[in-house]
Amino acid sequence: MPVPHPFESLAPATRAELRIELGERSYPILIGPGLLDAASTWADLPRAEQALIVSNTTVAPLYATRLEQALAGRFAHVHRIELPDGEAYKTWGSLNQVFDALLQRACDRKTVLFALGGGVIGDLTGFAAACYMRGVPFVQVPTTLLAQVDSSVGGKTAINHPLGKNMIGAFYQPIRVVCDLGTLGTLPAREISAGLAEVIKYGPIYDLDFLHWIDAHLPALRCLEPAALAYAVQRSCEIKAAVVGQDERESGLRAILNFGHTFGHAIEAGMGYGQWLHGEAVGCGMVLAARLSQRMGLLSEPRVQHLQGLIERAGLPVRAPRLAADNAARYLELMRVDKKAEGGQIRFVLVDEQGAAHLRAVPDALVAEVLEAGCG
Amino acid sequence: MPVPHPFESLAPATRAELRIELGERSYPILIGPGLLDAASTWADLPRAEQALIVSNTTVAPLYATRLEQALAGRFAHVHRIELPDGEAYKTWGSLNQVFDALLQRACDRKTVLFALGGGVIGDLTGFAAACYMRGVPFVQVPTTLLAQVDSSVGGKTAINHPLGKNMIGAFYQPIRVVCDLGTLGTLPAREISAGLAEVIKYGPIYDLDFLHWIDAHLPALRCLEPAALAYAVQRSCEIKAAVVGQDERESGLRAILNFGHTFGHAIEAGMGYGQWLHGEAVGCGMVLAARLSQRMGLLSEPRVQHLQGLIERAGLPVRAPRLAADNAARYLELMRVDKKAEGGQIRFVLVDEQGAAHLRAVPDALVAEVLEAGCG
Repeated sequence: MPVPHPFESLAPATRAELRIELGERSYPILIGPGLLDAASTWADLPRAEQALIVSNTTVAPLYATRLEQALAGRFAHVHRIELPDGEAYKTWGSLNQVFDALLQRACDRKTVLFALGGGVIGDLTGFAAACYMRGVPFVQVPTTLLAQVDSSVGGKTAINHPLGKNMIGAFYQPIRVVCDLGTLGTLPAREISAGLAEVIKYGPIYDLDFLHWIDAHLPALRCLEPAALAYAVQRSCEIKAAVVGQDERESGLRAILNFGHTFGHAIEAGMGYGQWLHGEAVGCGMVLAARLSQRMGLLSEPRVQHLQGLIERAGLPVRAPRLAADNAARYLELMRVDKKAEGGQIRFVLVDEQGAAHLRAVPDALVAEVLEAGCG
Repeated sequence: MPVPHPFESLAPATRAELRIELGERSYPILIGPGLLDAASTWADLPRAEQALIVSNTTVAPLYATRLEQALAGRFAHVHRIELPDGEAYKTWGSLNQVFDALLQRACDRKTVLFALGGGVIGDLTGFAAACYMRGVPFVQVPTTLLAQVDSSVGGKTAINHPLGKNMIGAFYQPIRVVCDLGTLGTLPAREISAGLAEVIKYGPIYDLDFLHWIDAHLPALRCLEPAALAYAVQRSCEIKAAVVGQDERESGLRAILNFGHTFGHAIEAGMGYGQWLHGEAVGCGMVLAARLSQRMGLLSEPRVQHLQGLIERAGLPVRAPRLAADNAARYLELMRVDKKAEGGQIRFVLVDEQGAAHLRAVPDALVAEVLEAGCG
C-alpha cells in the first residue's frame, strides 16, 4: 500500500509543491522557506474586495504584517483579527468573534479567509469559512510544524465542545496551503517536538522506510535543518494526501491517521484542553497504542521499544498521566465519546510489523492493563 | 425553461413521491396524508443505535409521540429535545442545546436526527446534523406548509446571527423528506397564508401555468383541500428540485428562488425576527420586487396588479412596514448585508412577462422610489 517515495535518491531540496487531488475541491500545497513574502505564492488566488486574516496574539505580531503586505495587491481591504492563543480558545466564542468581524465589515461570500497560525487557528478559521454564508474560500498558512504536517491536509475543521474535542465541525477544503518553513524558526522547542509526533505517526501506519528516515534525521529535524524539514513536511503531506484522497469523509481508511489519537484525545480532555499540547498527547498515545498492538499480537516487543525510544528522543512524554483514582475507567469513559466510537464501542488504530494499520475493538480489560502499565 | 407538469391532466391524487437527484446525495420526498404513522415511511432508513427528534414546544405535543412510536422499531433509543418556538430561537444557543443533548447521550456519528417542525426547526436541525462530528444523517419532517414547499428541498441549513439572518450555515442534504399533509390541519390560518407566499413564488419565476392553477385553486388551498394541497406541495418541490439540481450551491440560477426575499429579509431583520412571519415578509417582498421589475421595464402594470391581488387574497400583507425615519436608507443598509449582495452591491431577483427571473443590480434611487410608494 505505501506510495513510492524518493527516500533513496533524496536531494537536499528545500522547496516542494504537492497537489491534493479531490476533484473540483483539489488544491496545491506549497512548501519552502520565504514563501510568505513571495508574490508568486499568492498569484492566481480568486479576486475579491475583502480578505480577513485570522491569527492569534502570539503569531500575528511576528507574521501578520508581512502577510498583509503580500496580499495588499490582490484585495482592496485586508482585515485582521487576533484571537487569544491556545486550544482553550478553540470555542464557539472565538468562532463568533470571526463572524462578528466579517459581518461588521459587511464581508460578502467572495471574501477570502486566511488562517495564519497553528492547528487551532487553522481548524477554527476553516470552520468559520465553511459556515459563513454557507461557505467562503479560505487559505491555510500553517506556522507550526504540527499544522504543516497534519491539519494542512485533509479538510477537517472544527471547534471544541465542553463535552468533547473537535465535536462540532465540517469537512471543508482550503483553496491553498502555504507552509513557510521560515515561520518554524520562532517556534519553541516544545512545539517542534509536538509536531514531530505527527511526523513520526506516518511511519508505523503507512511507511516503515519513512520511519527509518526520521530515525536517522531526528537531530537534524530538531535543529530545523531546512532540507530535512522540507522533506519531512513533504513526505507527511504526501502520505496524508494519499490516505485522504481515498477517503475524504472518514468512512474507513482515513481513520488510520488517528493512530495514537484515541488515547491522545482522552489525555487532552482529561487534563483539560491546553495542559498538554496535542502532539504531546498523541506521542504518548502512540506509545499506548503500540503497546496495545503488541498485546493483540500484531507487533513485536522490539518494535514497541523502538517506537517508544524514537518518541522519547523527539522530546515527547512517553508515560501517560493518571486522570483519576479509577484511572482506566476514566480513560474508557472519555474514549467512548470519541467520534471514532460507534454504539459505545471504542475502535483503536493498531499497527503491525509490516507498517500497516488496523481498526479494532479491544476488550476493556486489556485496555485497562495497558493503561495500568503505561500511566503515571 | 419550465419543466413539463401534469396540470392539464391532474387527477385528484393525495399522495406523491419525488426524488431529488444530486448524485450520491440524492434523496426522496414523500408527500401525503397519514405518513407519520405508516411503517413504510421509515422503512430502509439506515440502522443506528440512537435517533434524536428535534422539535419545538408547539409541535412536539401534537406529533412527537406518534413519530417516536413509528421509529421505535428501527432505533434502540429515540430521544427527544423540545426547543422554544419561533425564529427568535434560531440561534447558537438553541443549536448548542442540540449538541449538548447529543453529547450527553454519547450519540455517535451514525445517530439519525429528525427535524419535526417548521422551517426554523428544519434549518437548525439540518445545521446541527451538518456540524455534529462533522456530519450525521438527518431526516426532514416539515409540519408547516412553508417548510414543506420551501426548506424541505435544497439542503440549505442555517442559524441567524444578531447581524443577519441565516448568516451561519451549511449546504447539507437530508436523507429523506416526509411531508405529512395531515400535520397542516393544526396550523393557524396565518401560517397557511405564509406558506402560500412561497407556493405563489414559483409561478412568476418559473411557471406561469402553475401561477394560474394557484389563482384558480386558492380557496381550496386556504381550506386545506387534500388534493389541491398535495399538488401544490408536489409542484413546488418539483420546481425547486429542478432549479437546485442545476445549482446546488447557489452560484447562479438558484438565486432566482429568492424572488421577494431580498426585501423580505430586510423586513424581518428591520422589524426584529419573529415579528413578521417569513412568508409574510416574502409576500410583501414579492410585491416590491414585482413593482421594481415593472420600473425596470420587465413586467407590465396589469401583471404587477394581478400578483399583488393574488398575494392579498392569500391572506398576506401587501404593504411593507416603515423601518425608520429615513426608510429607504434603512432598507438599503439591511439589504447590503444580504448574502446575495457582492462588494456592497445588492442584486435583486426581477421577473418578466414570460415567467422567467433575472438577477439585476438596480440604482438605489429607483429602489427608494419603489419603497416610498410601497411602504407604510
